[in-house]
Amino acid sequence: MSELTVKHSSVARRAALRALLPGAGVDALLVTDLVNVRYLTGFTGSNAALLVHVDGDAASRLCTDGRYRAQVADEVPDLDTVIGRACAATLAELAHELGVGQLGFESDHVTVDAHAELAEKAALVRAPGLVQRLRMVKDDGELAALRAACAIADTALAELVDHGGLAPGRTEAEVALDLEYRMRAHGATGPSFASIVAAGPHSAVPHHSPTATPLRRGDFVKLDFGALVDGYHSDMTRTVVLGTAADWQRELYALVAAAQAAGRAALTPGAEVPDVDAAARRVVVDAGRGEEFVHPLGHGVGLQIHEAPLLGATGSGRLAAGMSVTVEPGVYLEGRGGVRIEDTLVVTDGAPEVLTRFPKDLLEI
Amino acid sequence: MSELTVKHSSVARRAALRALLPGAGVDALLVTDLVNVRYLTGFTGSNAALLVHVDGDAASRLCTDGRYRAQVADEVPDLDTVIGRACAATLAELAHELGVGQLGFESDHVTVDAHAELAEKAALVRAPGLVQRLRMVKDDGELAALRAACAIADTALAELVDHGGLAPGRTEAEVALDLEYRMRAHGATGPSFASIVAAGPHSAVPHHSPTATPLRRGDFVKLDFGALVDGYHSDMTRTVVLGTAADWQRELYALVAAAQAAGRAALTPGAEVPDVDAAARRVVVDAGRGEEFVHPLGHGVGLQIHEAPLLGATGSGRLAAGMSVTVEPGVYLEGRGGVRIEDTLVVTDGAPEVLTRFPKDLLEI
Repeated sequence: MSELTVKHSSVARRAALRALLPGAGVDALLVTDLVNVRYLTGFTGSNAALLVHVDGDAASRLCTDGRYRAQVADEVPDLDTVIGRACAATLAELAHELGVGQLGFESDHVTVDAHAELAEKAALVRAPGLVQRLRMVKDDGELAALRAACAIADTALAELVDHGGLAPGRTEAEVALDLEYRMRAHGATGPSFASIVAAGPHSAVPHHSPTATPLRRGDFVKLDFGALVDGYHSDMTRTVVLGTAADWQRELYALVAAAQAAGRAALTPGAEVPDVDAAARRVVVDAGRGEEFVHPLGHGVGLQIHEAPLLGATGSGRLAAGMSVTVEPGVYLEGRGGVRIEDTLVVTDGAPEVLTRFPKDLLEI
Repeated sequence: MSELTVKHSSVARRAALRALLPGAGVDALLVTDLVNVRYLTGFTGSNAALLVHVDGDAASRLCTDGRYRAQVADEVPDLDTVIGRACAATLAELAHELGVGQLGFESDHVTVDAHAELAEKAALVRAPGLVQRLRMVKDDGELAALRAACAIADTALAELVDHGGLAPGRTEAEVALDLEYRMRAHGATGPSFASIVAAGPHSAVPHHSPTATPLRRGDFVKLDFGALVDGYHSDMTRTVVLGTAADWQRELYALVAAAQAAGRAALTPGAEVPDVDAAARRVVVDAGRGEEFVHPLGHGVGLQIHEAPLLGATGSGRLAAGMSVTVEPGVYLEGRGGVRIEDTLVVTDGAPEVLTRFPKDLLEI
C-alpha cells in the first residue's frame, strides 16, 4: 500500500463518516478510539483523538502529544494538528469554541468517568459505532494489507512443516516462537495475537496458551495464529496429527471440516449473520456434538483481530461484499483433543475469497 | 512464581480490596477490567468479570465463557465460577439476586453504553481505581516476575551486543526482531510492547517504529524494549553510538545521564510524584534543553506497561516502598538525534532497586 493510497483512503473515509453525521444528529464527532483514529487518518501513535466536523477537513482537527510531533506531520499531512496530552478534552473544548452545537462521542468507547469530564466542556450526544460500521466493508488498500498478512501466515506455516518444525519432542512454546519468527522474517510487524499451539489434550482447550509440554506422536496439534501487516490482522487455524490419525481423530476432523465448508458456503451478501453461524452449527448439532462447539462461528477481522460483524447467534445485521470475516468452527472433546479449522475470507458477490490458503485436508505429519 | 504463591496472593489481594469497599460506599465491586480480574484471581482468559462481595470469597463469583471452562477451573480453583458470554451483565444480575444493595463499578473502565445496560440490572455506584490503587505497591510474587522480566531484557541486549547485532548495515527492524527473539528464547512470553529501535535522526523521534533503514557508522541507536514474564512487563531504554561518539553526542548523553541519575535519586518513599519528574527535568532545563524533553519522566509498570503512578507534572500522590516505576528522561534534537536512558526500578526504604542492570555508560560499539 503506497503512502499516496493511504492518504486518499483517509480522505474518502472521513467523507463517508461525515455523511453519517446528520443521521446521528450531530454537527461533529469526537473520535477517541485509537483504532478508529488510525482508520480515519493513518496516524499510528499511542495517544490521539480526532474531531471530524460535518463541514469538512478544514474544520476538523487531530490531537496528539509532543512525543509524536514529527510522526503526525509525516503520517497526517492533510489535517490540522493540535499538540496536547489530554486529547479528548482538548478537542471537546475546541469544538465548543468552533461553535459545534451537538458533539457526538463514541459512547461504546468513552468511559463513564471520561464522559463526566468531557460533558463539562461540550454538549455531548451518544454516537456509537459509526466508524465501526464503515470499517466492516474493506476498501482496496485494506484488502491488500489483509491479503499480504494472510499470505505471510501461509508461508510461515508451510515453512514450519517443511523444515520439520512439527515433530515429537518440540514444545508448544518452541513451535509458537518458530511460527512467529518466520512471520516476522517474511515482513510481519508482529503476530496478530498471542499464538495458540495446543498439543494432545490441550487441543481441546479452545484458547490454550503454549506451554513447555512436548508434542507427542499421535497428538492433534492445533495452531491458531496470524500475522500483522500495516495494522491489519490475519487469522487462521489448522489442526494436524503427528503420525497417523486414529479413527476418532479422522471422524472429528471430517465433522469440523464439513461444518467449516457449510459456513463458507453461507457467506453471501445479504445473509443474516446468525444464519451463517447456524449453517455451520447445524452440521455439528446433527452429529450430536453441538454442546462441544462452545463459541461463535467467526468474527470480522481488520484493524482489530475481533471486530464487527460477529458471526454468532447473538450477532445482528447482514453480510455485504467486501466484509472480511473468519469462519472457524471447533469441536472440543475435553481430556482427549479438539479440532478447529479457520480461514479468513472476504465476502464477494460470488464465492467468498479465501485469504488463508494453506491446505485444509487432514495433514498427518 | 509457583502456582501456590499465585493462589495465596489472589486471596490476599481480594481481602485487601474488600477492605476498601465500605469506604467506597458499596457492598460489592463489579470488576470488568481484565487486568484487574487477572490481578485478583490469576485468570488469564480474554473474557471475564468478577464480583467481589464484601462478605468474602464465598459470596464472590468469577464469570467467563465456555471457551475457558477448563482453564478457569485450573487457574482459579478457589472461586465459584459462572459460565456466560456477557459477563458483566450476568454478574450484575447475580448481584441483584444476591441482595447486593449498592454495586460498585469501575467507572474508569466501563463505557457509557455498557453502563446504560448494566444500570437496568442493578443499583450502580461509581468506584474507580480501587484495584489500581492496590496494584501500585507490588507484592513478592509480582516483584519476582518483574525481576525475571528485567533480567531477560538485560541478557537479550548483552547477547545482541556481544554477537555483533548492533552493526552498520543491519536494519532497525532486524535489530528489533533479533532482540525480541532472544527475549523469547530466554523465556519471555513476548515483548512487553512493540520494540523501538531508532537509528540516526530517527533516535530523535521518541516513539519511533523500526523501519528498513540500515544502521550507519556514527549513528545514535536508541533501543526501548522489554520482556513479558507471567504477565509482568519490563521496560528499558539504552542509547549507544556506532563507532566513536562525536562531541555533541557525548554532551547530549552526559546531560540525559545526569537527569536520569537525578530522577533515580528522587525515588524515595513519601516523595510527591510531580517532584520526582521535576528533579530530573530541572537538570535538562538548566542546560537549556527543557523544550526538547517532551514527555513525563516515567510511569508505573507491572501487569500493564503503563500504569499508576504517573511520574509527571500532572501526576498526583506520593511514592511508597514496593512501587515499580520507570525513570526515563529523553532529549531529542529533531533531525539530528536523541538520547533516552530508562530503567525499571523498585522504590525501597533505602536506595531504589534497579531491576534493569545493563550498564548505562555511553557505549561506543
